[in-house]
Amino acid sequence: ADVKKIAVIAGDGIGPEVVAEAEKILKRTEEVFGLSFETEHALFGGIAIDKKGTPLPEETLAVCQSADAVLLGAVGGSQWDNNPKELRPETGLLGIRKELGLFSNLRPAVVFDCLKDASTLKPEVLEGTDLIVVRELTGGIYFGEKFRRESAQGEEAVDTCAYNVTEVERIVRQSFEIAQKRRKKLASVDKANVLETSRLWREVVNRVAVDYPDVELEHVLVDNCAMQLLRRPSSFDVIVTENMFGDILSDEAAMLTGSIGMLSSASLGEGSFGLYEPVHGSAPDIAGQGLANPIATILSVALMFRLTFGYEKAADAIEKAVAEVLDAGHRTADIAVDKSQAISTTQMGDLIAAAI
Amino acid sequence: ADVKKIAVIAGDGIGPEVVAEAEKILKRTEEVFGLSFETEHALFGGIAIDKKGTPLPEETLAVCQSADAVLLGAVGGSQWDNNPKELRPETGLLGIRKELGLFSNLRPAVVFDCLKDASTLKPEVLEGTDLIVVRELTGGIYFGEKFRRESAQGEEAVDTCAYNVTEVERIVRQSFEIAQKRRKKLASVDKANVLETSRLWREVVNRVAVDYPDVELEHVLVDNCAMQLLRRPSSFDVIVTENMFGDILSDEAAMLTGSIGMLSSASLGEGSFGLYEPVHGSAPDIAGQGLANPIATILSVALMFRLTFGYEKAADAIEKAVAEVLDAGHRTADIAVDKSQAISTTQMGDLIAAAI
Ligand SMILES: CC(C)[C@H](C(=O)O)[C@@H](O)C(=O)O
Ligand SMILES: CC(C)[C@H](C(=O)O)[C@@H](O)C(=O)O
Repeated sequence: ADVKKIAVIAGDGIGPEVVAEAEKILKRTEEVFGLSFETEHALFGGIAIDKKGTPLPEETLAVCQSADAVLLGAVGGSQWDNNPKELRPETGLLGIRKELGLFSNLRPAVVFDCLKDASTLKPEVLEGTDLIVVRELTGGIYFGEKFRRESAQGEEAVDTCAYNVTEVERIVRQSFEIAQKRRKKLASVDKANVLETSRLWREVVNRVAVDYPDVELEHVLVDNCAMQLLRRPSSFDVIVTENMFGDILSDEAAMLTGSIGMLSSASLGEGSFGLYEPVHGSAPDIAGQGLANPIATILSVALMFRLTFGYEKAADAIEKAVAEVLDAGHRTADIAVDKSQAISTTQMGDLIAAAI
Repeated sequence: ADVKKIAVIAGDGIGPEVVAEAEKILKRTEEVFGLSFETEHALFGGIAIDKKGTPLPEETLAVCQSADAVLLGAVGGSQWDNNPKELRPETGLLGIRKELGLFSNLRPAVVFDCLKDASTLKPEVLEGTDLIVVRELTGGIYFGEKFRRESAQGEEAVDTCAYNVTEVERIVRQSFEIAQKRRKKLASVDKANVLETSRLWREVVNRVAVDYPDVELEHVLVDNCAMQLLRRPSSFDVIVTENMFGDILSDEAAMLTGSIGMLSSASLGEGSFGLYEPVHGSAPDIAGQGLANPIATILSVALMFRLTFGYEKAADAIEKAVAEVLDAGHRTADIAVDKSQAISTTQMGDLIAAAI
């Protein structure tokens, strides 16, 4: 069979636990669907800082670059928060995105039936919410020039936000194409009444839109979008926006579903290569206790199958297995109503694997 | 009596209607409390573009500069959206903030009892929510250098975000002082794991915090704050943040109260001078029909009394009058459950004036 290479980055906190369950799922799909994976583990984030003195070691980058896809657990923890910049886990995150050319971050925000009461939104408002935030991931203020200088008013810090036509166009086209395969609605979010980068962004969106006449386009100002996500979440289909706005809005969107512990994400570049990871963080407070919910990471595997490998059937099977196990009432502690009935991380992984 | 000068800027859309009701309230407080106001009207925003060829005419700025406070209705409308930058209402807004030195925007987000069902959040989540967002208003990416240039990847747009120590310190001190008079909790929002301006921001906050040991300080990353506002709105007291983040988060916070049509805001500089305006926009679709709700603008007068003039009693009386009229069941169309029972803009103004 065609062997797919997957770089596996467990990371920090609960990362290793949830990734271990996702690997069970890989194994199971090999058996059931005759697929074949070669996994290679690599150090990244806090653990790489501790063991290698850098959050993104050269070997890790090489492992990712020679793989067809990357599966990432989670990185970070308070022990590294006060490190100098080059020794912080997030510097590794920004570095891996840039080095691997992952310019697009897809964050589906969907509501899991069994979790709809976990949302702080009223069920009738949430009803039907199924949106995806497409965040530009390698441009804007995250990657612009940064420096300090003296000013007449004391020390001054500067960040630069830049976007060129090529950077905007590729993510906008991708978003229109995603919208075409969904409900054909695209909301482009900017702050064109204030920012020059947003004005360029909007010009490109309007020019590209001509090629996608079947997609209904709206321009939404970022402040208004923060409101509309609360007021009418179900009216959104695909939202595309620049890096910083996407960081904020994708987290808001994820939280309003009430299902944040179950959401997965994909970071894509040109071609089929992608990095897949749960939306949730490394949760150091519950690490190593078997309390973590592996579902978001397992669903990241399904996303990988669909977007990188084109293994539609196996992806469907994973998602169906998750739904079945949840429907049967099995819950990890984070999503259990009755915590005393909660199952462990490995039990959840085993049940889902068995259901495939 | 001590005559206070108020510059009145009606603006566009429903601006003139809601401002007219606020002026009734000024008159009424003159009678009841022996206060004395001199109001001067000035053109600003879209109407100023149409009549004077600029959103912020020199005369308007002069009227504001010679006043003790400014009362603003609302500006903007789609007919000006595609104008060149110097002919757009928001350019006037940014200009007036900068020219008047209004570096601080206070946006209280409170829940009105009669509107708590209007929120899309569950009542039990919303319960007790009473926060204020302090947004830096004259710095950051809004006012940094902006330009276009050619790049190897097509045209490129650039925005610059800069903050110096003085700019950060004054707003941070103000926020600590506001917190001291409230529940003594301050959340400082930044993106210190990525941005240099945020790292400077956080350094200043930590240094200033030493002078306010009675205030409990937390640093919250902006993406996390967008989530926490949804998850635990009532746990926030004062939130301070830079211009762009404040734009997004203050709108999110306002929307989650469900009371956005009733919220007022203050923009302050050094000294007691301030500009007061409702949080809602110009709502051109309902302009001129007597449908607008004047309460947010009337409450902006109360805020002006309190923060600029120190007229505590009169401020209390306005707020009490609003509460009484609402408790008696009177509603404008936007907040009426039974629209057929709704009263008009002027009727609402009259009732509140009479209740003072
Ligand atoms: C850790 C941080 C640098 C990162 C980001 O802002 O991109 C995170 O918030 C995310 O959204 O993946
Ligand atoms: C109109 C726009 C420039 C303005 C801003 O972003 O400051 C508005 O959104 C606000 O919040 O007052």
